[in-house]
Amino acid sequence: MTTTAYAATSRGAPLQPFTFEHRALRNNDVAMEVLYCGVCHSDIHMVNNDWGNSSYPIVPGHEIIGRVTAVGPDVKKYAVGDTVAVGCMVDSCQECDPCKQDDEQYCREGFTPTYSGVDRVDGQLTHGGYAKQVIAREEFVLRVPKGLDLSRAAPLLCAGITTYSPLRHWNVGPGKRVGVIGLGGLGHMAVKLAVGMGAEVTVISRSENKKADALALGAHKVLISTDEKAMEQAANSFDVIIDTVPSQHDLGPYTPLLDLNGALVLVGQIGSLGDVSSVPLVMGRRQVAGSLIGGIAETQELLDLCGEKNILPDCEIISINDINDAYKRLERGDVHYRFVIDMASLPAE
Amino acid sequence: MTTTAYAATSRGAPLQPFTFEHRALRNNDVAMEVLYCGVCHSDIHMVNNDWGNSSYPIVPGHEIIGRVTAVGPDVKKYAVGDTVAVGCMVDSCQECDPCKQDDEQYCREGFTPTYSGVDRVDGQLTHGGYAKQVIAREEFVLRVPKGLDLSRAAPLLCAGITTYSPLRHWNVGPGKRVGVIGLGGLGHMAVKLAVGMGAEVTVISRSENKKADALALGAHKVLISTDEKAMEQAANSFDVIIDTVPSQHDLGPYTPLLDLNGALVLVGQIGSLGDVSSVPLVMGRRQVAGSLIGGIAETQELLDLCGEKNILPDCEIISINDINDAYKRLERGDVHYRFVIDMASLPAE
Repeated sequence: MTTTAYAATSRGAPLQPFTFEHRALRNNDVAMEVLYCGVCHSDIHMVNNDWGNSSYPIVPGHEIIGRVTAVGPDVKKYAVGDTVAVGCMVDSCQECDPCKQDDEQYCREGFTPTYSGVDRVDGQLTHGGYAKQVIAREEFVLRVPKGLDLSRAAPLLCAGITTYSPLRHWNVGPGKRVGVIGLGGLGHMAVKLAVGMGAEVTVISRSENKKADALALGAHKVLISTDEKAMEQAANSFDVIIDTVPSQHDLGPYTPLLDLNGALVLVGQIGSLGDVSSVPLVMGRRQVAGSLIGGIAETQELLDLCGEKNILPDCEIISINDINDAYKRLERGDVHYRFVIDMASLPAE
Repeated sequence: MTTTAYAATSRGAPLQPFTFEHRALRNNDVAMEVLYCGVCHSDIHMVNNDWGNSSYPIVPGHEIIGRVTAVGPDVKKYAVGDTVAVGCMVDSCQECDPCKQDDEQYCREGFTPTYSGVDRVDGQLTHGGYAKQVIAREEFVLRVPKGLDLSRAAPLLCAGITTYSPLRHWNVGPGKRVGVIGLGGLGHMAVKLAVGMGAEVTVISRSENKKADALALGAHKVLISTDEKAMEQAANSFDVIIDTVPSQHDLGPYTPLLDLNGALVLVGQIGSLGDVSSVPLVMGRRQVAGSLIGGIAETQELLDLCGEKNILPDCEIISINDINDAYKRLERGDVHYRFVIDMASLPAE
């Protein structure tokens, strides 16, 4: 089956129209027409091969909202016409202990990424949501709850689950004090979700510039990290800090903000943290941890929560032919807070 | 009341005989004759003012085994003749939430250290266990269980609790896989305690030299950290790693050894960890944490456990007039694994 898409055919190349042959439907496959696809910063990293694991051509996109067009004979949960979603993973071994504990993102064999991955069955390159059609095995397809605004739901599949998973793992709920560092695609979701989960939420920002935005997103407080006095007064005042900053930054000012047993959880930056001091860790039994997207069951739980509480990212809807401009704007942080491609803008042929 | 002791009267000075006036017994005070006192590496750091918080004269010693000689009228738990112990703390605010949760070591106001601290009532300098007598308020005095070898029990009060507290906090028990880095005073206790708690214990060492010692202490396995292949094979194989190394060292080889949700807990080094990578943290929801000694209730639990299971440190008993030589040997790691001063060697006058 031929499908239209947008792809980068080599490292750093602009995205351009592309067609490819989809695999024939397997017994447990769900095929969907892509309705909306979110634009994640990691799409740019992958196009640029920043992590050294890209395979070309790349059809990016792992925040996918679609409508089922066909199902394999063994598919039980979905039928033609259902509104569904696919996130960062399309397969995993399904047999290791993390997989069995619904932590497929930590599969011992490595999960199969939605794009620029290698399909476990046929060895072909996987292609993502900047395409007219996507096929994925049933176990990695999510149900979109009724009533959720489809045009804004896509970013829940990566920005949403990446922040929801640590909030849930570190038991965020009423009475918990949550800090959020960085107010981009991930950060703004962390704020909305932590507020939705009943926590007291503070955005920690370098300047006053983002204060109004943070409060508008639902944050209860804003802490300015360059205000030494305010930072000193905020010592020991957070149970969890979700750090969404995507580039290297000194953790020194942040770890003392954690209360006894508190956790600073890195979800944005993959690489060197620079020098880290053990002093605040030892003196307050604090921890620095990391977290990677989230499991499938957890992602379904997130979608259901967002449906129930009407929690949605702030999106700017674009047309697929604006994608290269959107990448430039995303690289300079010029978006509030997530681009979503209306895939109706992609011709079917 | 005059008591004899050994003290450093200025920074880095050798310890020498010293006498001082103890406070009059308060209503909730317990006075004890010191029988044994362990020698902790931090005693040397304090004498040298390595942490910048030393006050002289210093009478070191926070691993104290004693016999009660007098009690204040309000003391309920102890009577003259009881065998008791004092560890790193002699007071705390008793009112903050960590104190109320039996985490006095993380008291909001800072706990009062056993020596070179400032008494919360009279503002006088506190003095430790290199002395004929020690006085402490009842709440910070521990009961030594019957049958515990008194000459070897002292190091439980610092080396013991410093490793027991994180083992307990991170839920070590049967089925858990524990790694121990560093095989000194702290490390050898971590091994014995984790074994006693039913865990599978591996000593992680740079060379084969310590292999026989590690196994003799009860470790089930030894992992040589300079053996790249062995380290690769050991990836994802520990639930908790207790890192007792007292100086800066690269955490890079160790964090990937943790399994999903695993914790590397620093108990030895206070200061810069150097560059830390977020990759193993994010990719396996691993954490780097710290832990400081332990609470009073937890210390009592430790003493009771060691009494029940006959878990004791390996000690070399010395006379108080050997203390300066012992410091030199301790600085070059020449002790298996803890010096304990037999305080009968200190004249009472």
